[in-house]
Amino acid sequence: MRMVDIIKKKRDGGSLTRDEIFFFVNTYTRGQIPDYQASALLMAIFFRGMDDRETSTLAEAMMKSGEALDLSDIKGPKVDKHSTGGVGDKISLPLAPIVSSLGIYVPMISGRALGHTGGTLDKLESIKGLKTALSLEEFKKQLAEIGVVMAGQTENLCPADKKLYALRDVTATVESIPLISASIMSKKLAEDIDGLVLDVKTGKGAFMSDLQDAKKLAETMVTIGKSFGKNVKALITNMDQPLGRKIGNALEIEETVEILRGEGPEDVKELTFRLAAEMLIIGKKANSYKEAYEMISDTIKSGKALEKWHQLVEYQGGEVEHIYSHEFTKTKYTYELAAKKGGFLYSYDTYAIGIAVSVLGAGRSTKDDTIDHKVGIALHKKVGDFVSFGEPIMEIRYNEVERFEKALKILTNCYVLDEIPPQKPLLVMDTAQ
Amino acid sequence: MRMVDIIKKKRDGGSLTRDEIFFFVNTYTRGQIPDYQASALLMAIFFRGMDDRETSTLAEAMMKSGEALDLSDIKGPKVDKHSTGGVGDKISLPLAPIVSSLGIYVPMISGRALGHTGGTLDKLESIKGLKTALSLEEFKKQLAEIGVVMAGQTENLCPADKKLYALRDVTATVESIPLISASIMSKKLAEDIDGLVLDVKTGKGAFMSDLQDAKKLAETMVTIGKSFGKNVKALITNMDQPLGRKIGNALEIEETVEILRGEGPEDVKELTFRLAAEMLIIGKKANSYKEAYEMISDTIKSGKALEKWHQLVEYQGGEVEHIYSHEFTKTKYTYELAAKKGGFLYSYDTYAIGIAVSVLGAGRSTKDDTIDHKVGIALHKKVGDFVSFGEPIMEIRYNEVERFEKALKILTNCYVLDEIPPQKPLLVMDTAQ
Repeated sequence: MRMVDIIKKKRDGGSLTRDEIFFFVNTYTRGQIPDYQASALLMAIFFRGMDDRETSTLAEAMMKSGEALDLSDIKGPKVDKHSTGGVGDKISLPLAPIVSSLGIYVPMISGRALGHTGGTLDKLESIKGLKTALSLEEFKKQLAEIGVVMAGQTENLCPADKKLYALRDVTATVESIPLISASIMSKKLAEDIDGLVLDVKTGKGAFMSDLQDAKKLAETMVTIGKSFGKNVKALITNMDQPLGRKIGNALEIEETVEILRGEGPEDVKELTFRLAAEMLIIGKKANSYKEAYEMISDTIKSGKALEKWHQLVEYQGGEVEHIYSHEFTKTKYTYELAAKKGGFLYSYDTYAIGIAVSVLGAGRSTKDDTIDHKVGIALHKKVGDFVSFGEPIMEIRYNEVERFEKALKILTNCYVLDEIPPQKPLLVMDTAQ
Repeated sequence: MRMVDIIKKKRDGGSLTRDEIFFFVNTYTRGQIPDYQASALLMAIFFRGMDDRETSTLAEAMMKSGEALDLSDIKGPKVDKHSTGGVGDKISLPLAPIVSSLGIYVPMISGRALGHTGGTLDKLESIKGLKTALSLEEFKKQLAEIGVVMAGQTENLCPADKKLYALRDVTATVESIPLISASIMSKKLAEDIDGLVLDVKTGKGAFMSDLQDAKKLAETMVTIGKSFGKNVKALITNMDQPLGRKIGNALEIEETVEILRGEGPEDVKELTFRLAAEMLIIGKKANSYKEAYEMISDTIKSGKALEKWHQLVEYQGGEVEHIYSHEFTKTKYTYELAAKKGGFLYSYDTYAIGIAVSVLGAGRSTKDDTIDHKVGIALHKKVGDFVSFGEPIMEIRYNEVERFEKALKILTNCYVLDEIPPQKPLLVMDTAQ
């Protein structure tokens, strides 16, 4: 089997066989195929796509390229949630302790800030001492003992995905539905879960801004999951404006705690409840949304969800009291961005807000950048709100003047005001299962 | 400027600027862009194409990536011919001495056997002592002294093209009209010629089997040439059957001599005359085809063309008497492939014949293979000829039994016989200028 023939076949619109896909993934992972042939194939896939069988096989080959978890010792429903990434999307953080406190095992492997989006691991690491690099053994032990774990991808989990993802990033082959689907699902399949809820973001702050593309991505991932006997449901949700009111690492931990206390912004609450309900239904802990919503309300009211959160933080070495200390989100400077006129907030340029927060220091522009966990933005206004002339729309929290100036340039034009109140946006736009 | 943005722009159908194309070619040639980004861009170009401006700029950037010839000292018309490659296509060999004997300077940089096609350099090297690796100085000196030179691409001529061609070969990005055009034209522009005649092959034995593709390739190359003020004409010619009767390296030198003696197969003669006439017209040595054909007939009849050939061979270190010796094309074995029934020869699988000749040892399957200059095929029948049952269609000339057996398997089914005589194929199918 020759790699050049495989590239040519895909280039000319052919459907790759199981053998061809495994040959590519395995020999590439072992370093026996040069990057330049892999990138040519990735670009051919970008243009020609892959059918469902090819995409499932690609996910399987990537999953099998390394060590996978074996959670068969753990008796009970194991359900995870994955989001395709957005701005202010901290849902995983309150979600995992909520459903864990209701008897669902949550073995969550999360990612880092990427482009304009934040990353769950970076947010968790705002908490002093908290460790997200766990071995497979540590991961499994923690899951068995407290029912929830949130960690980064280990060295040996899906090495093919790691290598291919790094290559896609520098060869403009990221935005391909089969490649995105296979990448996400390979990691989720390696978690040895029974079920999975996918939150596929669409709109101005999502990687898939187009609803049709997001729907196609959702359907492809559901198809892959089902082909491996997993119970998978996808929600396509609105990322036209940032989720919640806080964007930044420690700031989003704060908002997490608000949710776990029964407080916090409506949209974060709504999406957390809905995703938690889906997980409870998939994990057979609830039979209906009504039942699930009652369980979720109860676990929050009783303080059990917050307790589970504290347990999770402590188990991974984090200092719970740090979250509640004055210094947790304290920055050297703050700045209130005032409205240049009065009106109804019609829309946010959510992508620009994500970039601005990254520029402040919450994200990375190269792999080696260090993160400033405290900086970020607190939104005073959400889409549909009325804003008076001169009223602050958001507060910018920063530590470095130079970074602030760059971010401010972006943020000054990141909102649109209108004379009539806009329709409140729909949060869950579609589903796939 | 970042390479990933250039890839993305082309991927999304954008037109690359002059700066972007020069950035890519120059930094890639200097090794400052990794192969994996170059191959991703090449695949994006395969799918998205390039407009005429981009293609001309790519050719220019590749031409300027190294040292180019400066032939301004040589007073007189400098005209070259290039063929996109075929089976039995030895036209350059008689053509160059013919037009050179009529006062056209021919600075010809040729290639080697590639895939199913032969290469002019390999054919020349059948002649004992003949050297094709010349420095730019040697090349120029020979051209000035005897008016014709046939050599390989020097180290420093179009290094970008060399590097990109090697990459395209292993990443399934060869078959792209802008990439083929820019590759060919960059080398021809570097020759510092006034005019160029292109022989774009189409049909079963050509790289561009489709006539429309061949026409588009011809037009693209003519457009590039004109944008640099060169007088360029392209003929689109039939490669449905091998050209002439002899295929193989030394065998094609023999057929070259036949043509230069006024003998040889009709199709080789016809194409040589036509291409020579185009070169004489472009070089302003003739005003009409009629005048050109008379000049060509005369230079052959007078022996001047053959004399020029001998002069060329000797100047490059070759032993003229070797060509006429018994051993020049002598192989250990010969085999006559007999017709399995009677009928009119309807068609040849010319691609398969090219592969079979390469398998016999006339070509290379890897870069390091050595060539057996003597092996090949002598066709007894051409398309349209009547063949009796058992009559030999071709003679296979070989030195290794194992290679012969492989070739025979291919050749057994390489022809189709029919009950009614087919139309004689048209040799020149279209032109572009």
